[in-house]
Amino acid sequence: MRYKLTLEYDGSPFIGWQKQAGQLSVQGVLETALKTYLRKTTAVCGSGRTDAGVHALGQVAHFDCDKKLDTRKAQYSLNALMRPNPVVIRKIETVDEDFHARFSAKQRTYLYRIQNTTFPPALNTGRVWHVNQPLDVDKMNEAAKLLIGKHDFSTFRAANCQAKSPIKTLDEIKMARVDEEVHITVSARSFLYHQVRNFAGALVNVGVGTWSVADFKKAFLACDRTKGAITAPAEGLYFMKVEY
Amino acid sequence: MRYKLTLEYDGSPFIGWQKQAGQLSVQGVLETALKTYLRKTTAVCGSGRTDAGVHALGQVAHFDCDKKLDTRKAQYSLNALMRPNPVVIRKIETVDEDFHARFSAKQRTYLYRIQNTTFPPALNTGRVWHVNQPLDVDKMNEAAKLLIGKHDFSTFRAANCQAKSPIKTLDEIKMARVDEEVHITVSARSFLYHQVRNFAGALVNVGVGTWSVADFKKAFLACDRTKGAITAPAEGLYFMKVEY
Repeated sequence: MRYKLTLEYDGSPFIGWQKQAGQLSVQGVLETALKTYLRKTTAVCGSGRTDAGVHALGQVAHFDCDKKLDTRKAQYSLNALMRPNPVVIRKIETVDEDFHARFSAKQRTYLYRIQNTTFPPALNTGRVWHVNQPLDVDKMNEAAKLLIGKHDFSTFRAANCQAKSPIKTLDEIKMARVDEEVHITVSARSFLYHQVRNFAGALVNVGVGTWSVADFKKAFLACDRTKGAITAPAEGLYFMKVEY
Repeated sequence: MRYKLTLEYDGSPFIGWQKQAGQLSVQGVLETALKTYLRKTTAVCGSGRTDAGVHALGQVAHFDCDKKLDTRKAQYSLNALMRPNPVVIRKIETVDEDFHARFSAKQRTYLYRIQNTTFPPALNTGRVWHVNQPLDVDKMNEAAKLLIGKHDFSTFRAANCQAKSPIKTLDEIKMARVDEEVHITVSARSFLYHQVRNFAGALVNVGVGTWSVADFKKAFLACDRTKGAITAPAEGLYFMKVEY
């Protein structure tokens, strides 16, 4: 039987999704709990890696198990076993054997949260990127629209990105002011390494006026990471959902 | 000159608002920063105390200073001095000498956040009370309405409350489902010790069906803390604002 997990985690204490010997990872915490619960070493396959500090409200993963599990009981017990690590199974579902968390994914959605205030966060420390200059969201939106569609995203691609090609299709990018925050929501089948954080860094350049929309366009069309802006910090990034 | 501070803090690491020798308190962190910034021991007077673990988005306090301060610079420097403690000055304003954070307050508003899901919080650990049984918000609202107005609130008063009388006037109580959470918002000129957390505990009894609305009414009218419900945990409580 194959099981699909929908996961929430606070990325702060983890080296990221992927397990690494002697380090605290989300995958490692899940696999340790599964080993105890199922009394068998069980691999968890995620829909994608997240970096250290990156949060999730809807990461998806799958694992296989010979036994038919009572999903409600398994959810409860696994969540208890993972405490006090901030990883929670929001849902467990039985899926077909051909379901694959990574390869069956049709669309992934990320949220990037910016706290746009003159004062730093207290309650949201580690949960947002604090930008103290006022952001012009209309200008950011104008720049963001240029990103929609199939493009060479080299300007927004980390040097150590493993993808074969810098060409990706961005389905959607939306900007919204939510109280004291600015939220950037992006959806695509897949992303280059650091693509969303590099979008956020460049869009903030436009928002604070360091770049005009024309400067943004020029940087984007240069297809050159060195023409891009800074990589926005991991702590503002949330993996929101995966569609299959 | 008298200055009014509007404060945000994450209550988790503090013993509460009030300073105590050798312990980390919000007032202590503020006074330490002020002493460094003003080079003079300066007392901070808060609009009310908050317990260990209780958060604030709009606590108000005042302090006096001989010098005329550049409020923008003072806010920036004091916020920098308080790091990494999760206390932030959201606003500094000059006020008249007769302004008093505690005695001039006309209304205080608190929010109580309940995460109502079968799974525990990951990102909101320490920020909500997790209640895993489904809450009937309509029933909770029906019960809450009984609390509005001038009453003897002894049922919701902590044993060690310092108030002279258990009679208080509750201006408003509102219940709302916000995504996976249930929010209880209450406003009054002043509250008894643990009153909001005791409201939350009793209303959850109604929400999960342990109590009918009639049971709630009976407990309330008994004017006896031993007839009340549990005190909801501190970590779900937020001091939202003070009106003057």
